[in-house]
Amino acid sequence: MRRLLLISNSTLHGGGYLDHCEDELRDVLAGVGSLVFVPYALVDRDAYTASARERLARLGIDVRGAHEGDDPRGALEAAEAVFVGGGNTFRLLDRLQRLELVDVLRRRALGGMPYVGSSAGSNVACRSIHTTNDMPIVHPRSLDALALVPFNLNPHYLDPEPGSTHMGETREQRIVQFHEEHATPVLALREGACLRVDGDRAELRGTRGGRLFRRGEPPRELETGARLDELLRG
Amino acid sequence: MRRLLLISNSTLHGGGYLDHCEDELRDVLAGVGSLVFVPYALVDRDAYTASARERLARLGIDVRGAHEGDDPRGALEAAEAVFVGGGNTFRLLDRLQRLELVDVLRRRALGGMPYVGSSAGSNVACRSIHTTNDMPIVHPRSLDALALVPFNLNPHYLDPEPGSTHMGETREQRIVQFHEEHATPVLALREGACLRVDGDRAELRGTRGGRLFRRGEPPRELETGARLDELLRG
Repeated sequence: MRRLLLISNSTLHGGGYLDHCEDELRDVLAGVGSLVFVPYALVDRDAYTASARERLARLGIDVRGAHEGDDPRGALEAAEAVFVGGGNTFRLLDRLQRLELVDVLRRRALGGMPYVGSSAGSNVACRSIHTTNDMPIVHPRSLDALALVPFNLNPHYLDPEPGSTHMGETREQRIVQFHEEHATPVLALREGACLRVDGDRAELRGTRGGRLFRRGEPPRELETGARLDELLRG
Repeated sequence: MRRLLLISNSTLHGGGYLDHCEDELRDVLAGVGSLVFVPYALVDRDAYTASARERLARLGIDVRGAHEGDDPRGALEAAEAVFVGGGNTFRLLDRLQRLELVDVLRRRALGGMPYVGSSAGSNVACRSIHTTNDMPIVHPRSLDALALVPFNLNPHYLDPEPGSTHMGETREQRIVQFHEEHATPVLALREGACLRVDGDRAELRGTRGGRLFRRGEPPRELETGARLDELLRG
């Protein structure tokens, strides 16, 4: 009975850290008194964990960094809930692989431990990180991720900009390129949006909605509140 | 005596394919009657090769696709010059690795065969593709590339946009993240810019200039005409 909250971005323009999704956090973490924060996507783990600790204290939740102490695996094994922070997705997955945390995170999250991910932390919850927006600053041994859901996310989704003179690929073109190589569906979350999963039920929440890309089909516009249970069936 | 032209982008807004860098192409390919086009960054290799063939015919150069015939290695071994087209950098490097073309391309280019790269084709000429902007739609066995130069490029460089409300990392932030993991210098080329290398001489050409990122130093603004020989010394 998985219980996931996968957030597109932790800070929305004009707001503070996790402000825009505070109600969703309270909801998915209802009854949780402490959690383990996974800070490996950023280089300064202590500072990153301190931010999360300060912010979640305001929700009445104690935070321990997975890197604090010398047994991150044991910490995750015993965690009441986890929050996997954003940053660089390649670095995050690489560290999870090297520290041998992939299996324990997957097992615990599929077993019902609440899992909150933001940006890179949402990418790694999915089938693979092939649809991250990040720069490949390190080379993980595989791009396969936790597979808590059988599809991929694209966070920070940007609609094609009319009148842009930049010649790099649009986000949509990049996802179409992904589908030239793989059949995995991609749920694109605009900033402000998030995905809530409870068991076999999935719902798009937050603001600004998303788009669903399936190989060989035109992208489908999704509004807040859209049910996406079908995506969980793989 | 390497002879390289590494282009940021093959098409500049408002112009046709390779129009903005035609003079540079004529210069680096002076005396060349035919070249091998490397189309692996895009999925439709025939269509891509046909575009390059049509465009380079106007410069009096015959084009053969590396994928035409069943011996891409032999084609590169015998090539008068190569042009490696843009598209997805991960796919390009993956195919070069699988087809065992990395060594022959490297040896021939370092031996003096003119090498022209555009976008992904410029990335793979460098030490690694860790600083590509592309989505990791496939997973090459290594991100090490041809290492025709001992630094990395970032093509399609975008300056931070004042007033942007998007919360994804700026290009500058991404390159700073790369330097949290590696010491390799990164030459960022704005669209319109290119790098010409002849032996131990390197010069920024084209339009709009670039920026040089070295680990632990503030980025350095570079104008067209800047000499970058020091970068070649590694």
